[in-house]
Amino acid sequence: MEPTFASLASAIDATWVMVAAILVILMQAGFALLEAGSTRMKNAGHVAGKTVLTFGLCTLAFWALGFGLTFGNGNEFIGLGGFFFDPSGENAADSFSNAFAADIPISLFFLFQLAFAAVSLAIAWGGFAERAKLSIYVIFSFLFTIVIYPVIGHWVWGGGWLAELGMQDFAGSTVVHLQGAVAALAATILLKPRIGKYNRDGSSNPIPGHNQVYTVLGVILLWIGWFGFNAGSTLGSTSGFFAYVALTTNLGAAAGAVAAMAIAWSVTGKADIPTTLNGVIAALVAITASCAFVEPWAAVVIGSVSGILTYFTAIWFDRKGIDDPVYAFSVHGVAGIWGTLSTGFFATPELVEQAGVGAPGLFYGGGWHQLGVQALGLVGSLLYVFIVSYVILAALKATIGLRVTEEEEVIGLDLSEHGGYGYPELLPAEHISSFKRNGSHSLTR
Amino acid sequence: MEPTFASLASAIDATWVMVAAILVILMQAGFALLEAGSTRMKNAGHVAGKTVLTFGLCTLAFWALGFGLTFGNGNEFIGLGGFFFDPSGENAADSFSNAFAADIPISLFFLFQLAFAAVSLAIAWGGFAERAKLSIYVIFSFLFTIVIYPVIGHWVWGGGWLAELGMQDFAGSTVVHLQGAVAALAATILLKPRIGKYNRDGSSNPIPGHNQVYTVLGVILLWIGWFGFNAGSTLGSTSGFFAYVALTTNLGAAAGAVAAMAIAWSVTGKADIPTTLNGVIAALVAITASCAFVEPWAAVVIGSVSGILTYFTAIWFDRKGIDDPVYAFSVHGVAGIWGTLSTGFFATPELVEQAGVGAPGLFYGGGWHQLGVQALGLVGSLLYVFIVSYVILAALKATIGLRVTEEEEVIGLDLSEHGGYGYPELLPAEHISSFKRNGSHSLTR
Amino acid sequence: MEPTFASLASAIDATWVMVAAILVILMQAGFALLEAGSTRMKNAGHVAGKTVLTFGLCTLAFWALGFGLTFGNGNEFIGLGGFFFDPSGENAADSFSNAFAADIPISLFFLFQLAFAAVSLAIAWGGFAERAKLSIYVIFSFLFTIVIYPVIGHWVWGGGWLAELGMQDFAGSTVVHLQGAVAALAATILLKPRIGKYNRDGSSNPIPGHNQVYTVLGVILLWIGWFGFNAGSTLGSTSGFFAYVALTTNLGAAAGAVAAMAIAWSVTGKADIPTTLNGVIAALVAITASCAFVEPWAAVVIGSVSGILTYFTAIWFDRKGIDDPVYAFSVHGVAGIWGTLSTGFFATPELVEQAGVGAPGLFYGGGWHQLGVQALGLVGSLLYVFIVSYVILAALKATIGLRVTEEEEVIGLDLSEHGGYGYPELLPAEHISSFKRNGSHSLTR
Repeated sequence: MEPTFASLASAIDATWVMVAAILVILMQAGFALLEAGSTRMKNAGHVAGKTVLTFGLCTLAFWALGFGLTFGNGNEFIGLGGFFFDPSGENAADSFSNAFAADIPISLFFLFQLAFAAVSLAIAWGGFAERAKLSIYVIFSFLFTIVIYPVIGHWVWGGGWLAELGMQDFAGSTVVHLQGAVAALAATILLKPRIGKYNRDGSSNPIPGHNQVYTVLGVILLWIGWFGFNAGSTLGSTSGFFAYVALTTNLGAAAGAVAAMAIAWSVTGKADIPTTLNGVIAALVAITASCAFVEPWAAVVIGSVSGILTYFTAIWFDRKGIDDPVYAFSVHGVAGIWGTLSTGFFATPELVEQAGVGAPGLFYGGGWHQLGVQALGLVGSLLYVFIVSYVILAALKATIGLRVTEEEEVIGLDLSEHGGYGYPELLPAEHISSFKRNGSHSLTR
Repeated sequence: MEPTFASLASAIDATWVMVAAILVILMQAGFALLEAGSTRMKNAGHVAGKTVLTFGLCTLAFWALGFGLTFGNGNEFIGLGGFFFDPSGENAADSFSNAFAADIPISLFFLFQLAFAAVSLAIAWGGFAERAKLSIYVIFSFLFTIVIYPVIGHWVWGGGWLAELGMQDFAGSTVVHLQGAVAALAATILLKPRIGKYNRDGSSNPIPGHNQVYTVLGVILLWIGWFGFNAGSTLGSTSGFFAYVALTTNLGAAAGAVAAMAIAWSVTGKADIPTTLNGVIAALVAITASCAFVEPWAAVVIGSVSGILTYFTAIWFDRKGIDDPVYAFSVHGVAGIWGTLSTGFFATPELVEQAGVGAPGLFYGGGWHQLGVQALGLVGSLLYVFIVSYVILAALKATIGLRVTEEEEVIGLDLSEHGGYGYPELLPAEHISSFKRNGSHSLTR
Repeated sequence: MEPTFASLASAIDATWVMVAAILVILMQAGFALLEAGSTRMKNAGHVAGKTVLTFGLCTLAFWALGFGLTFGNGNEFIGLGGFFFDPSGENAADSFSNAFAADIPISLFFLFQLAFAAVSLAIAWGGFAERAKLSIYVIFSFLFTIVIYPVIGHWVWGGGWLAELGMQDFAGSTVVHLQGAVAALAATILLKPRIGKYNRDGSSNPIPGHNQVYTVLGVILLWIGWFGFNAGSTLGSTSGFFAYVALTTNLGAAAGAVAAMAIAWSVTGKADIPTTLNGVIAALVAITASCAFVEPWAAVVIGSVSGILTYFTAIWFDRKGIDDPVYAFSVHGVAGIWGTLSTGFFATPELVEQAGVGAPGLFYGGGWHQLGVQALGLVGSLLYVFIVSYVILAALKATIGLRVTEEEEVIGLDLSEHGGYGYPELLPAEHISSFKRNGSHSLTR
């Protein structure tokens, strides 16, 4: 085949989007480390290992049904078609013609979108951590990938009713992050707090994560992956715009780190490491919707606000008796809401025109219109995901049960769900026995 | 120089292949973590650190001799020429004209192929783990890179007799994975089992790896690296086909994770984490040969079968008294054989025509021909690598000895081979002394 | 916009440079792991976590001022203009016209250069490790990014006096590595050695790092990142030259690993892991200046010499009473000097002509000229960075103090600066109390 300008442009775009898809898949390593580092040693193998398993399950479910439900041609509410995705199938392209107009291969579009669905699912696990049964992970992986994610995905990115209203969610503050966070919230409410988290008087005990080096590495890998997440959502590099998106993304993340650390330091006198790290993730979540619509200074503001919001809301949920082990709802939910709303304030006319989605924000003379669209999209998405997640999980709770037994939770999910510790030389059997005898939290004496 | 369509296409291909080469080199981190996590604390620094050393040795040996022996113009059995590779040398391109026809810079082809040789070597180390001397690693690194790998590499990819027969091994199920696995098997047979692995009655004791979080991170990094491994083996992105290869690769890996977990769960009642992770790697190994030749559903089948095969063969080898500490032969060997055979069943006429290598598989009307070619290639490769590895290692065993002393093995290779523990605060001298006194396996009491 | 040859070439170059920028940012993970692994458990959360914080601070400072001071149009000594970088600003391109002539988007050039500044800062932290206050990290992050780095950056890469003299520093042996190392040296001199490092008779005690697996992973991530660092400094892939740079970089690193291990083994009888890893980094530092100017064999020589130089100078500094916890000056400083000088010996006429910077080296008939330019650049850079770093840190020492209290240092910076241990289950309160009572170094009994 002779090359043409168009075919070469397509190959350049595809090269970048492939890199981006790989970076977004790398975020699974980030979540595995972040969640494992933020939880206890006795659950470390389980927490990290289930990430690989659920990415596998999500891949198969998204291939069989999720991709077609999200992007297949259908109606305003759901996609219908292109199941058991086969790009060499005769009508592969036809089945996705409404949502897929990019010049990259459709196999690559599948891979990129799969990576997004898997990130959303990985976020949800935060709310299940340290007490849900492995079987629940298996079942919820499938159901989230085919019943929950495709609906919001279709509404906003698949040509659904929110797309038609002009909702601005460039790389998925709502579609990816809020969805995962809301599922996490439903889970953590239904699962109830971990043993030892709350005292009889309702006051809460800190359950610190066991390895901050993992957490740091996880956050840096997420930051790295986010260049694929946001700058890859341009679906190409030929316009050069991907570099601008990477710039605002990085500025937002940096501001989130600094603001979160500053607020923790000024409130408690200590520059808490987990707070700083949560600030980074929250800022990245918020700039995800707005990275393509705002100026650099606005990215700094959006990131800073996220870092501060996350700090206070995490404390608030903790006090309200909601045990969200890795602060999934504060980091991905609250910041997801803020990020989705932020374009209603900060979107500039030039960037909106370039993107061709929605209207400029309040601070740039766009009035209240876009803010209203963003809020409507948020409310609709939040309600749908919460109700469906809650119903699914409540049904599972009433039938097979969501949670391991008290004894299993105490000895840890590594042993109870997988038959062996993740750190067998640091958590040998006799320590656990003495732990159970004494009811002590110190596993290493 | 004025750009032309051809020069731009070449630059696009080169950009992708550079990314792919870097991803394949990143697999060294994956192997370091996988092997370190799957072995004990007292050997962790050694296991991880020797990866860097042997990648260095492999680089120098491949530069000096290995690259020329694999791809240099020669005869049906070996390449001859282009030693001490210098791309600016007058006849660099001439020396490789038979095997290198891609439009990317030859320096990049070198880097990409070096990364593959180094993966093969890293796989071999699995069979040496926790008892081989460091000097053996040094010597075998050189010899594997110049005497073993180039031969099979030349046969299949360098224009040798298997290339002429039309053997299908797209990214190296045989060339890279089976070779490393067979060398590991020869090593583990000659080295004999680790102290404490088998009881007098022949029954085996589990020696669990010390850190499943490392293992998980290692596997995710390998999964990520495999996008470079397989999709990079297209040697370009302008055709768009690299996206299809990435799709089948990811489907295979996902199916391997799920199938391996399901089989472990149904057999033992526990969803063993190491089994799940081995399922991923085995599936990736198998889809490596076939990723460019099969349909998505076949990728799912190939991956699933790999996950199950690996589970049962790992148990079988363990029972037969072969102590393969990280299951190198089951994961890379058995799955490598299955993957190489799989194109003989599943290769489609359209994809074979596009690749221009071999014939369609049995299930697509191709008859038994291709399956025969694949089997012949497997037998030839397996015999060559096993015999040469065995002879080299037996000669080393008879002269300088392969294995550290019993005392050194008990105190760990970190201390005996490198002079200090990888975790000096968790394994201080007094713990080791008491360990030696009591003969206990618990290092942390 | 219709694509043209020029616009497509620009998009290809941008795609590669984006990948390279992301790889260089990934080096933050490498430094976090290398530094955390090389220090003690009680400081692990602090050491790793401060990397994220200071990358955030560096991003904001470089955006506000550093980028404009380095690359903005100014005079021979400093850039002036383009502050609070906004690529959509009317005169963004005008402000940088002297230094920025590449065909990639200026947002991407910003991101790539920011990543370099952040690497330089991360190197400096080596000299602060395990005893500096967190507030010093915050303040020095800002000042280094706006007062130190931009000056040398402008001199060599921003059109300053060393650029005019034809100094060859392709990817920053001097600009990035020597700068960071010299700041580290000033810090470690002013901070004084860690408690317990030296005995009354001046002899030194080893303080081994707590986790060699982290160190190995850190080094592999740095090696990976260096492909972006060096091969990305071509600012494009259309010429194909980026592959050559990647080749020399990899050969140098490999030689450094092997040479450092060999020297340690032959001197001490043990193939020390940290020495091998330092050899890799030192070789990468050295080849950074010369990767674009030298032949493959010369890359091997440059890398080997680096590995050996670093080994002996690290011992020498240790004996001289300079406690440089992660050998920042030996690895990045000494090797930075050697690498910068090496082009004065090994630069070939062909490669110099292609690069269009400076003259060939002594061994290729270029005489002493280029060696003189390199030496002059080194002396100027070393003096500027040392004096300014020393003055800043001495002023901070005289006012707010550089160092935590003795008690804080003993209990660890995780607890003292951040309020909680990075490994709370391995370092619970009672262990620390007993540690303080006994003055023992064993934290795990």
